Amino acid sequence: MREEFQADLNEVSRLLVTMAEAVRAAMRKATTALLTADLKAAESVIERDAEVDEIYKQVEAKVADTIARQAPVASDLRMVITALHISADLERMGDLAEHVAKTAQRRHPSPAVPAELRPVFKGMAEVADQMAEQIADLLAKPEAEAAAALEKADDGMDDLERELFKVLLHDDWPYGAETAIDGALLGRFYERYADHAVNIGEQLVFLVTGQPVDGLS
Amino acid sequence: MREEFQADLNEVSRLLVTMAEAVRAAMRKATTALLTADLKAAESVIERDAEVDEIYKQVEAKVADTIARQAPVASDLRMVITALHISADLERMGDLAEHVAKTAQRRHPSPAVPAELRPVFKGMAEVADQMAEQIADLLAKPEAEAAAALEKADDGMDDLERELFKVLLHDDWPYGAETAIDGALLGRFYERYADHAVNIGEQLVFLVTGQPVDGLS
Repeated sequence: MREEFQADLNEVSRLLVTMAEAVRAAMRKATTALLTADLKAAESVIERDAEVDEIYKQVEAKVADTIARQAPVASDLRMVITALHISADLERMGDLAEHVAKTAQRRHPSPAVPAELRPVFKGMAEVADQMAEQIADLLAKPEAEAAAALEKADDGMDDLERELFKVLLHDDWPYGAETAIDGALLGRFYERYADHAVNIGEQLVFLVTGQPVDGLS
Repeated sequence: MREEFQADLNEVSRLLVTMAEAVRAAMRKATTALLTADLKAAESVIERDAEVDEIYKQVEAKVADTIARQAPVASDLRMVITALHISADLERMGDLAEHVAKTAQRRHPSPAVPAELRPVFKGMAEVADQMAEQIADLLAKPEAEAAAALEKADDGMDDLERELFKVLLHDDWPYGAETAIDGALLGRFYERYADHAVNIGEQLVFLVTGQPVDGLS
């Protein structure tokens, strides 16, 4: 029974790592689509979101199956319920990458992001990518300390979002309302992506330590 | 055992109804704050989001306790896992009401929404309110048919969002980038609120019929 349960958990964990890698790849490609007005990259991200959704369903099914067959209690139960939360966050990260790709697609062949905003979006995309990488690593090998690093990375994302708004709201902003709105929404997509990564970090701390991190805002 | 399980489910259901009523009240008050530049209303919504988060934790604890004590399988297990998903959507709806309130707070004493946009936000707030009401009713008494009405209401929300962007992106837009960005983000908060309501409707269809609605986008 114990061995079976461990095998179930390993399978769930494997699915979550695959999902994390998929949403990381999706956001990388969405950023390429955004910064180089690459329509094919945008379309690929949009099409492939279904793959992330499919893994999400597999996690759900595997967790339900594990609970039904193994009737886990206490920390075992906590682990499988945590997996559900993590997969929901990852699913949402995939959606956010898709939103970035859709913005690039909608504006094609024009670039959605004017030259002045490229550095800040490059910065946001780098932070997002590092966070997604950390999550994939943590899912493979949970550690309470490393999860805290995600919080810190998220502070960097918040700084970048403030910088973005400073440019968008500057008196000299020359691009009109539409580009300002796109910029603000895109900033929000990256910032939300990072928030979900932080949530996952908190779930993993809870998993390792048994102590909840009060992450609800 | 069976009676105990039913009592557990009733308790979870009662918590979800309370949560739905709380997020409905939050969005109503946030809209008042937004449209009348009412700082007290905005602050009250922001403070009281912690109450929604608290109920969310209670649902989580009750579900974990129910699984551990009753070891539900099949449709019983589906019910308690569905409750987790619904509470996560409700928690997020509370956050979105808080975001609307924070926008009103940030712009106070100016109104965050100029006169031209008031009708569309009134419309969005009405749709959001109806959807939240339907959800509270459905949680008390799940029905597969009524859940479909939420999809339809959400189409109305999407139409309103398109209308909003038409105004924001009109050549004559006189308010500059900051107000346009606030308008776009506010529109997104209402639209996301409605999306979560649709998710809950889909979860409830699944609960009643056992058939998943493919709602992942």
